[in-house]
Formats: sequence, structure tokens, C-alpha cells
Amino acid sequence: MAIRGVLRVGEVAIRVLDLEAAAVHYGRHIGLTEVLQEPGRRYFKAWDEHDHHSLVIREADRAGLDYFAFKVFDDATLTALEHRIRDYGVAVERIPAGTYPRSGRRIQFQLPGGHLMQLYADKDRIGNTLPTRNPGVLPDEGVIRGMGPTRLDHVLLAGPNVSDTTRFFLQVLDFDLGEELLDNDNGMQLGTFLCCSNKPHDIAFVMNPEPGRFHHVSFFLDSINDVYHAGDIMGKHNISVEVGPTRHGITRGATIYFYDPSGNRNEVFSGGYIHYPDRPHLTWDTTQLGHAAFSIDNTPRQSFFEVVT
Amino acid sequence: MAIRGVLRVGEVAIRVLDLEAAAVHYGRHIGLTEVLQEPGRRYFKAWDEHDHHSLVIREADRAGLDYFAFKVFDDATLTALEHRIRDYGVAVERIPAGTYPRSGRRIQFQLPGGHLMQLYADKDRIGNTLPTRNPGVLPDEGVIRGMGPTRLDHVLLAGPNVSDTTRFFLQVLDFDLGEELLDNDNGMQLGTFLCCSNKPHDIAFVMNPEPGRFHHVSFFLDSINDVYHAGDIMGKHNISVEVGPTRHGITRGATIYFYDPSGNRNEVFSGGYIHYPDRPHLTWDTTQLGHAAFSIDNTPRQSFFEVVT
Amino acid sequence: MAIRGVLRVGEVAIRVLDLEAAAVHYGRHIGLTEVLQEPGRRYFKAWDEHDHHSLVIREADRAGLDYFAFKVFDDATLTALEHRIRDYGVAVERIPAGTYPRSGRRIQFQLPGGHLMQLYADKDRIGNTLPTRNPGVLPDEGVIRGMGPTRLDHVLLAGPNVSDTTRFFLQVLDFDLGEELLDNDNGMQLGTFLCCSNKPHDIAFVMNPEPGRFHHVSFFLDSINDVYHAGDIMGKHNISVEVGPTRHGITRGATIYFYDPSGNRNEVFSGGYIHYPDRPHLTWDTTQLGHAAFSIDNTPRQSFFEVVT
Amino acid sequence: MAIRGVLRVGEVAIRVLDLEAAAVHYGRHIGLTEVLQEPGRRYFKAWDEHDHHSLVIREADRAGLDYFAFKVFDDATLTALEHRIRDYGVAVERIPAGTYPRSGRRIQFQLPGGHLMQLYADKDRIGNTLPTRNPGVLPDEGVIRGMGPTRLDHVLLAGPNVSDTTRFFLQVLDFDLGEELLDNDNGMQLGTFLCCSNKPHDIAFVMNPEPGRFHHVSFFLDSINDVYHAGDIMGKHNISVEVGPTRHGITRGATIYFYDPSGNRNEVFSGGYIHYPDRPHLTWDTTQLGHAAFSIDNTPRQSFFEVVT
Repeated sequence: MAIRGVLRVGEVAIRVLDLEAAAVHYGRHIGLTEVLQEPGRRYFKAWDEHDHHSLVIREADRAGLDYFAFKVFDDATLTALEHRIRDYGVAVERIPAGTYPRSGRRIQFQLPGGHLMQLYADKDRIGNTLPTRNPGVLPDEGVIRGMGPTRLDHVLLAGPNVSDTTRFFLQVLDFDLGEELLDNDNGMQLGTFLCCSNKPHDIAFVMNPEPGRFHHVSFFLDSINDVYHAGDIMGKHNISVEVGPTRHGITRGATIYFYDPSGNRNEVFSGGYIHYPDRPHLTWDTTQLGHAAFSIDNTPRQSFFEVVT
Repeated sequence: MAIRGVLRVGEVAIRVLDLEAAAVHYGRHIGLTEVLQEPGRRYFKAWDEHDHHSLVIREADRAGLDYFAFKVFDDATLTALEHRIRDYGVAVERIPAGTYPRSGRRIQFQLPGGHLMQLYADKDRIGNTLPTRNPGVLPDEGVIRGMGPTRLDHVLLAGPNVSDTTRFFLQVLDFDLGEELLDNDNGMQLGTFLCCSNKPHDIAFVMNPEPGRFHHVSFFLDSINDVYHAGDIMGKHNISVEVGPTRHGITRGATIYFYDPSGNRNEVFSGGYIHYPDRPHLTWDTTQLGHAAFSIDNTPRQSFFEVVT
Repeated sequence: MAIRGVLRVGEVAIRVLDLEAAAVHYGRHIGLTEVLQEPGRRYFKAWDEHDHHSLVIREADRAGLDYFAFKVFDDATLTALEHRIRDYGVAVERIPAGTYPRSGRRIQFQLPGGHLMQLYADKDRIGNTLPTRNPGVLPDEGVIRGMGPTRLDHVLLAGPNVSDTTRFFLQVLDFDLGEELLDNDNGMQLGTFLCCSNKPHDIAFVMNPEPGRFHHVSFFLDSINDVYHAGDIMGKHNISVEVGPTRHGITRGATIYFYDPSGNRNEVFSGGYIHYPDRPHLTWDTTQLGHAAFSIDNTPRQSFFEVVT
Repeated sequence: MAIRGVLRVGEVAIRVLDLEAAAVHYGRHIGLTEVLQEPGRRYFKAWDEHDHHSLVIREADRAGLDYFAFKVFDDATLTALEHRIRDYGVAVERIPAGTYPRSGRRIQFQLPGGHLMQLYADKDRIGNTLPTRNPGVLPDEGVIRGMGPTRLDHVLLAGPNVSDTTRFFLQVLDFDLGEELLDNDNGMQLGTFLCCSNKPHDIAFVMNPEPGRFHHVSFFLDSINDVYHAGDIMGKHNISVEVGPTRHGITRGATIYFYDPSGNRNEVFSGGYIHYPDRPHLTWDTTQLGHAAFSIDNTPRQSFFEVVT
């Protein structure tokens, strides 16, 4: 039945302390395309995305996540999922079309970890600059800029009740459990990595005592060479790098973690295996925490488990 | 709803003229793992696949395709699809579990282009040599050999009635039309590229006057560096190369086409964009045939449209 | 004694039929930096070169090579080489400083294959846009453009008397013979690949009945990924591609051959082994002509041996 | 005059605490070819080197460097350099041919930083497994193993009197100063990076209060993909990684620093610019120490400046 139901994380809305500095970071350094300005808000897309925007930054006095939204296949899917979510006992708020720019109606609800999640089926499609008849493969010079991400890839969120949130994604939204990180002493899920596609994760959750915290938003790059190029841009512009380039044990992806000027963590990510639902899910435990997180030096970073916005 | 329904091409059975020569080609040069020998047959898997086998070679006096099989999500899906296929007016044959080694029951039917297609939900899962608890990312030395493909990627089949076959995949099997190649004079579909995943194609069909013909089977590589390494192996062992390394306009993937010792076309493939069902499908026409096929030199190869087994 | 004597091919002057079209090709598509315009001439450099220019294009009614020039270590080297060349029996013309823009004095002489060669020790150094104190590694966005070559790499010239020219380079200019291609029937040198550095060739000569012919000028790219990117630019702009991406047997380098709008052959080149003078020189013969030229498909191209300007 | 004089670091002899563990590290994990065993010693070469060996490990009760040796162009060069070294006032010891296995005569002397340096012109050439007639480009499967380095690349040595040692290399051995790191307060050379080839460094020296200390030996990899693969091997075998993958500001090379089981630092290195003697040398100062050392996260590592053997 191809990919139906919940498609992908299609919108991430984050708070920044300085809108101009953030616009330089996400627009010029990461290389996202700015598609809309509103008072206090800027909207961006990665070049190979077709929908109007995937990242919203809002100026606020505290960094962090406002909400994130997954796109679903169609309006009927949205209706069906609303029923399933209500039936599961979760309160759902309806957001009329037009509330968010260029977007159809949405539903919104809170996850057990405290995050606001939305689902929507429609957003204006503005394309990737290539025509749909005889498109060719390479956009004009200047379209791919900065770190050159092709897409928003995933988010990782931090909060309590990881297992409850995970169960919700598996049972209500029909995600697969790709990988999980367990406390070796008590078997508790410290982190879960969830798939609704062939990607090794579409969203992930890690345990954090405070609800609704934001760990990172990740942008997809085509190759390890591109990861290095992204790193060169970070170095040139003195972007704060947490760790990397390195590889994750979980997902097998190549990665650099870095921070936007407001302290929100970003990632560039490339590779990782191809996920299918009949693949056995992988389990890591705290005896191999370093290898699970960063599989080249096998060294966990304190900040990785502590810094959230 | 994550990836459900039809998952992927999970088995391709091809005829070869010389079993030993073919085993060297697929096993040692391409680097597939041989998992089973039967009189007149050899079974292979790519290293990062979990199911028992994905490629079957059978000695015969004529090269070509015996059948190909897609794996579906579960047995209920198989039952549901059997009904849909029958309802569409296609005769379905039931193949009991155990008929094919290490495999559950299958259904088989003929496509409008003359190819035998199967669906199945169960095959023994033997894993990728890595444990499922604290797996790490790198298998032992020797597991990744030869060209080092991670997976069987897709097949391209040649026959008449491309549009009929395409409609069957879209309407009955719920595939998406990723891209199509049209005759610019009359709008006829000369080739269609169909997706049931995030890949830019899971199967493709091109027009050919003779039914049931095999164009190629493709193996996935992780990077363009790996494509070059595969090419170096081809050169070293005098494997017959049709074209490449180059890039496809259709799918944006990096590619080399080459032949097994029996004349069956193989491909190594890497990259390509990430497909979603809400992406507009791309149309190429015969005014840009060269760019659609090989987007670096924009030069169609006669053999590419003529040589099939 | 480090690298002394003859350093590298520092200037290639070629004739083009249409200066504007050539400037778009070399400037925008290949991505060289245009540094000077004169009536009928344009001067270019690759971004990571420090000298003022390395490529000169001159409008003329016939494509081909005007001359090429190697830079030598210093003026004393130039004087010493002038003596050695004269002592070898070759007539040397002195060209005063200032004859060529931004350049010191030169000496010029004709090779046995009919090509005009120059040597010079001084040219204005304008740098690579990075400072020399705390330079960083990445120039500003826009400095690396198009195919993004870092340097002019080498030239290949076609003419008679390959062995005589080779002997001159080995005995007078102290080059090493890196590789050679022999006619298997009579042992004659059909091509020689000569080194004055760690590169697998700095200049090469192939046999051609007509003297003074130009086979190609080659630009260096950092990686195979960059070779593919260069190919994507060729495809986008319908640049005429002769062959590639592929690998050379000779030098092991990754390559694409393509033509400028006037029919002069260009190459992008990456990799190749690291040459040292104590490495045994490699010999290829015509029984392995295909593998020597293009070591993936082992197929010689007729045009490669016939098309020169 | 091509590359003449001092060619490259051709032999590094280091002490290890456990010969078997070191042989697994250098042989199986790094993937060097073991070519000779003697009581208490093992000899290795990288696959694409032609000389008999480039790395010697000797069991001892303290890790560190025994000596390092540069190969020079020929015996006459060796004689000439002996004179120059003596004339400079440095005592030279003559080591007869045969003292070291498979090696011709050597000269040995002590550098101002306390290191024992040797020069030699002859060592048995055993090749890279490829024939010299129609060699092809790819050795047999198994020849390139582990991290797959093509060559020993350089050494970095720690000791006092960096400027004195540097002056010796520039004035007596005719090296170029490629880059230097200065103390911004007093202009003192903290590190110098010296070239006798097109590589961005062939040897480097950093200041250390104790004489004769060993900072690292570096092995060359062909690509950034290979650097990541090397990192995957480190992670799989729990090899102690100091830093990386990352890039150096100095040299622009991609790097991982890691330790052998005895605590000697190793590096895998790829890329870097192409050096020529007419390139301006680059200066970094301590205001940009982080960027000079690791140009992605701009963060100096304490261990990098402190841990030596």
C-alpha cells in the first residue's frame, strides 16, 4: 500500500532569542530557503522539499519547541487519525484551515512527554525549483547553498513518559519501533527511535525529567562529503559544535550536532540503513551507551544527555 | 501508518546459462552471500538483508526472468491483496508454504506485460550477521565483499502493455507513480517507475514488443565511492559494462549497468531522491530521452532499449 | 631537496572560436575565476591557485593550443635550464618580462612534437582569497563555483616524435617517466606520462601524425563526489561529454572528458596514486588498450585517439 | 628537476609494550601488510608502497619512537647530504648496509629536539602486488584490508628547540616551511609543518619540554569515506580514539587521531591541499589555536598537546 497514513515530520516550529541571527543561521549557514516573513516569525524550506515550508522560527524570550507537525496522506487519513487519537483517550484540538499560513486544517494534541504535536494533510506545494516535465537533476546555482540539506529529516524530543509516548506512536499512529535504548539495570526505555518510512527514524524520544523539551532538529545531507562540507561551514562561521563529524550506532547515520545562536541543537545527518517493518528492531543498553550514541569513539557526551531547550 | 501493504521486491529468480560462472559473478564479484545450493539452483542475499535470500539463479538454456516476488507486510495483507487482484479480474494461483525454500505461502499471477509476479508474507529471517542487542554498525571483515551491495534494490521489466501493468500496480497494489517516460509524439507511456516506499522506484516497466522480458536487477550501494569501487571490480574481472558510472535523470541515482556471464543485465545503484506520495510525479518525454536515461552525457544507448533477456 | 626545478604546468593558452561562449564555459560552468580581460583574450585561474592566471583563451578561427608554460622554481633555475636546453641542441627564444601580463621573463622553444613550450619563474601572486595568517580552510561562498576545480592539473598533447619529446623531458627537464603505453607489435611509445611532482602525471604526450595538436587540459577536483557534481553540471548545460565519469587505468584517476564550445577537450580529474621517482614506471601495451584508457569498461573510445584540436 | 633529494619518510620505528597486540592493531585493524618477523620486532608496509617496509614495531618496556628515516633519491644524494649535515655542525653516524633488514647503508644523526633521524637511499623494492606491465588499478581482494591505508604519510614529533630543528630541515635538507603555529604573545614557533613534496606536510614538529618525544605517525587514506570506514573499524574494535573524524585547519586534511594498544598516537589522514614551494607559507597563531588544530569545532584538545610517548 506504499507509504500512507502518517508521512513525515513536515513542520517544526522553534523559538529563538534573536530572529535575525537565527535567520542567518538557518538561511545562510544551513542553507534553507526563506519563503515567508511575518512579524516575529520566519518560514524556511529545504531545497528538495515541495511543500511551502518545513521550519518556522519564532522570536521569544526562551528557546525551545513550540510544536511539531506530521503531514498525513490525505484529509480522510486526518479524520481517521483524529478518531483513533480520541478513542485512545487523548484530547484533540481542531485548528481551522488558514490558521497557519499556506496550510489546511490541523489537529493538535499533547504527547505524554509534554510536547504539542499536530497533524495536517494539506500545505501549499511550491516545488523544488525544478520543473515536473523533463526536470533534470540539478537546480540552478545558488539554490543549493550553505550546508545544502535536501530535507528536514527528523526531530528528537526530550521529556518524561518515553514509553507512553512510544506506545502512542506504535498503537495509534502505526509507527514501527526501529531501535530503543534501555537502562541495563531496570530495562526502562531511555530512548526510542520510531519509523513511519524507510528511514531509520522519523522521530525519536529520550527521557528527560522536564516535559516538552527539545533535543534537536535534523537536516538530511546526501553524503559523508556533504557532512564534512557542513562541518567546514560550521568552523568558518564559528557555529558551536557539540560533537562530530562522527557516526551514530543507533541508525548508523553520519552526524554533526551543533547549536543555533539561541542554543537549540541542530543536526546534519546522512546515510543510515534502509528500514522496513519486518526488520527486527534493535536494542541497545546502557552497557554500550557510548557505542549506541557515537560509534566511532564510543564516548557518550554529557551535554548530549543534558542540554535541551 | 508506516510502510504497510506491499513492502519491497524480496525475491528475483533469473535463469543463467552456466551456474558456476553465475555463482562467481553474483557471489564473488558482486559480493552477495550464498545461502543455499540446490541442484541447478543457487540462492543469495545481500549482506544487510534479513530474509533468507533475495536472488535465485537457475541454470537453463536461455537467460531471463523466471519470476519476481514482492514481500507484503503480513499474511492478512496477502489475503486481502489476493481478493483485490481477483476482483480486478486477474487469475491468481496459490502456492503452498514450503514450495519455495524457507518460504511461506505465496500467490502468483501474470502481469499484462507477461511477467510472473508473486506475493508472499513470510520467509525465514536469518539476519545480517550483526546481533540485535548492541549490534554495532560494521559487520566482521569478509561479510561485505566484492561490490558490497547492502540490498537488492529494484527490477526493471520489459514487455508490452506498460500502461496496463502500471494501472494494476497503482490501483490494486497501491503503488505511486514516481516518474514516467512518454512518447512526445503520442503521449504513450514508454516507461513507468513505481514506488511502494521512500525509494525513487521499487519496480519499473519499459515497453518492449516481446512479453515477459527482463531488463535488469539492481543492487543498492551506499555511496558514489562504492559505485566507483564496483566499477573497479568490473574492470579487474572484465565484466561486460554497458554504461557508467553515470547518473540517471530519472530517479537521480548513480548507476553502472553491466551484464552477468549469461547476458542478464545488472545494475549497481546509489542515491536518488527520497520519494513521498505527495511529491508530484515527474514526466520525461522523448525530446529529452538522453537526459532522462543518463543525465551527465545526455546520450541514450541503443543497447539500453534493445538488449533484454 | 623538496620540489625544485620545474614545478608545474602554470599556464595553458588555447584558441577558441567564440570568446564569449568560451568565457561562459570556463568561467561559469567549470567555475574558473576570470582575472583579466584583454581584447580577444580572457585570463582565468582556479580558486586554490595563487598565481595570477593559469588559463588563457584567445579568440581565433581555429581551436587548439597556442602554447603551454611550466613554472620553474626561481630565476636561477630558468637560467640553468636555458643552458641545458641550448646544450641539448634546441633553439631557445627569450621573451622579456612584461610581454605576457603579470609575468616575468620567459624562454620559449619548440618540442619535437611541434608544440611551443615556455618556462618562466615569476608571475604575480594574487592568492586564493584566504589570508595567510589564520587562513581557515573554506573560502567565502561563491569562490568555489561550477565544477569547483582547485587547480589546473595537466595537459596532454598530441604529435609525432613522442619518444623524442619524452627523452627531452627526462634528460633536460629532469622529469620522471611515470607510465607509458607501448605498441605491442613493435614496442613503440604511443603515449608517455611524465611527472615532475607527486602527481601521477604533470604532462603527457600521445602519438599523432600532425604536429602541435592539443588533446586536453585537465582540472583537478578533490573527490569522486566532485567528479559526479561536475558531470551533473555538464548534463544540465548540455556540455558535450566524450566519456565518463570513469577511471583511467593509467594514473588510476577518476575522470570525465568533455569539450568546450570550440571543440577543445577538457578533463576533470581526481585521485590517482602518489608518485615518487623510486616507484617503478608502469607499462601498458596495446593488448590492454581499453583497460589502460578506461579501466571500468575497458573500452577504448575511437574519438579519444582521433579528436584533437 | 622533479622530486629529488629527500623523498619521504620511509621508515618509522616505534616501541610497543606488547608485540602481539601491536601486530593485531597495525596488521589487522589498520590493515598494514606484515612482511617480516624478527625476535622482538615486526615489519609492515602499506599496500601501495613499493619498498619492503615502512613501519617497524619493537617490543620494549616503554612506548615511543626509536628512530625515523627518510628515503633520499640515490646514493649520491646520501653522500652529499652527509657532507651538508656535517658542515652544518651535526655529528653523523654511518650505518653499514645490512644493519637494517633489506636496507642499504644509512646515516644517522640527532635533531635539536632529541630525535634520532636516519637517511638512506636503498631498500628492497617488493612492489604493491600489481604487475608493472598492464597493472590494472585494483589489487586482489584481501590486499586492501582494515582501514586500508595506501601509504605511511608523515610523522609529528615533539621536543624542545622546534625552531632549530626547523632551520635544519629548511637549510640542510631543503624542505619548505608549509605552515607554522606561533605563540601570539611572543611569536615563538610552537609547531612547524615541513614539506619535501606536494603534500601539505611530510614531517612536523611541536614544542615539548621533553626531548625525543613521539606525537603520532599518520597513514594516508584515499577519501573522506575511507576516513569514516576507518572510524567504524575503531569503534568496532574499541580502539581508543582521541579526536575525529574532523578536519585540520593546518593542512586542510581530514583526520582521526587514535592510539595503538601501547599508547602511541596514530592518525588516518586524507586530502589536504597540493603544496608547491612558491605557495606562501601559512601562519596560525594561538588566538586561533582551535581552528588551526580542528577546523570544524575549533576546539583544541588538551590531550593533543600533552599526550606524547
